[in-house]
Amino acid sequence: MNYKMIIQYDGTRYNGWQKQGNTENTIQGKMETLLGRIAGEEVEVHGAGRTDAGVHAKGQTANARFHTDLSDVELLSAINRYLPEDIWVADLCRVPERFHSRLNAVEKTYEYRIAVDGGKHIFERKYLYFPEELLDVEAMKKAANHFVGKYDFKSFCANKKMKKSTVRCISRIAFCEKDGILSISFTGDGFLYHMVRILCGTLIEVGMHKREADSMNEILQAKDREKAGFCAPACGLTLISVNYDKNETKIEA
Amino acid sequence: MNYKMIIQYDGTRYNGWQKQGNTENTIQGKMETLLGRIAGEEVEVHGAGRTDAGVHAKGQTANARFHTDLSDVELLSAINRYLPEDIWVADLCRVPERFHSRLNAVEKTYEYRIAVDGGKHIFERKYLYFPEELLDVEAMKKAANHFVGKYDFKSFCANKKMKKSTVRCISRIAFCEKDGILSISFTGDGFLYHMVRILCGTLIEVGMHKREADSMNEILQAKDREKAGFCAPACGLTLISVNYDKNETKIEA
Repeated sequence: MNYKMIIQYDGTRYNGWQKQGNTENTIQGKMETLLGRIAGEEVEVHGAGRTDAGVHAKGQTANARFHTDLSDVELLSAINRYLPEDIWVADLCRVPERFHSRLNAVEKTYEYRIAVDGGKHIFERKYLYFPEELLDVEAMKKAANHFVGKYDFKSFCANKKMKKSTVRCISRIAFCEKDGILSISFTGDGFLYHMVRILCGTLIEVGMHKREADSMNEILQAKDREKAGFCAPACGLTLISVNYDKNETKIEA
Repeated sequence: MNYKMIIQYDGTRYNGWQKQGNTENTIQGKMETLLGRIAGEEVEVHGAGRTDAGVHAKGQTANARFHTDLSDVELLSAINRYLPEDIWVADLCRVPERFHSRLNAVEKTYEYRIAVDGGKHIFERKYLYFPEELLDVEAMKKAANHFVGKYDFKSFCANKKMKKSTVRCISRIAFCEKDGILSISFTGDGFLYHMVRILCGTLIEVGMHKREADSMNEILQAKDREKAGFCAPACGLTLISVNYDKNETKIEA
């Protein structure tokens, strides 16, 4: 069986999604260990987004192939009973054998959240970025418009040795301000290593009037990481959702 | 000067509001140490509600008398700069010398939050109670109606040696269910030791069909702690607000 799972996690105490050598403290590692125990065989879990250390997820999507006699409801219940309190599988279903959560992903949405009223937002403090100064949100919106479309985002890629294409298409950047928290959501066909965080750091610098809103095209054209802004902290970032073509996830009767 | 402060805190890692002997790990202790340093004199901080260990606050109200050359804005900024990340003074103003946050409190509102959809609500997990089974919320509402009014709440008081009156008036109990979280807010002229948590534990037992909604009057009449339900965990409880007569807080020109 190939199972598709929607996974939520508070990334605060993890070294990110992807297992690395001996580091057990990753979401992928936790999931593989648990599913391996339930299935009684070695299980590989493929995540759609390789979220960094400290990044959260409300809609990480993963798939894993294994066999179990449990019904889907029993399986979901068993997984959530044994996962730690900061990881939750919100949904689980069977998908065609060929389905791969990362390779078949059509669109992903990430959200970056910033406290913009000077408050400490103590109950959400682990899921926010707190800038040193007040931000000019209108200037940030103006700057963000320059990133919507298909561009070479090389300047916004932290992997300097990236050999594959750094062209990505961002279909939508949406701003929402509520109760002193600014949320910026990015929807696109894919994101480079640290891309959303560098985009946010650059927009934050625009909000602090350290950069002009209209200078974004220059940064894109430079194809040079040095020209873009800082990498905004991981704690503000959440993987919201991953979309697929319905034909890829539907099991034919 | 007498200062009135609205204090928010995530109570998770504290031994409650009130300082106790050598225990430094209380909100009152943290506030008194910090204000003492700022004012250069010993400062006593009086809180309106003596929240238990693990209970949170969005609107704890306190007053403290001390002298400082700082303006109110500077004082508030200094306080928040040195407080830990889980305590925040949301507001501060000068009040008449006679004002006492606890003795002058006219009404308090507490909120108890329960996960009712079986979800793990990982981002709010420290501020919720997770019951073992699904709850019959309609039965809980029916039961709660019996508590609105002026009653002797002795059965709901954890202090068995309480010598003062155990009569309190609850003016409102409101239920709100959103995104799988049930919030029950209690507004009244005062609450006995553990009273809101025992009321909630009793309502939760009604929701689990372990008690009849119409048996609440019997519990009130028994004036016996043994007859009421369990004390619901502290993590679900938040002190929302404290109200005062405007004449008590206004400095006359």
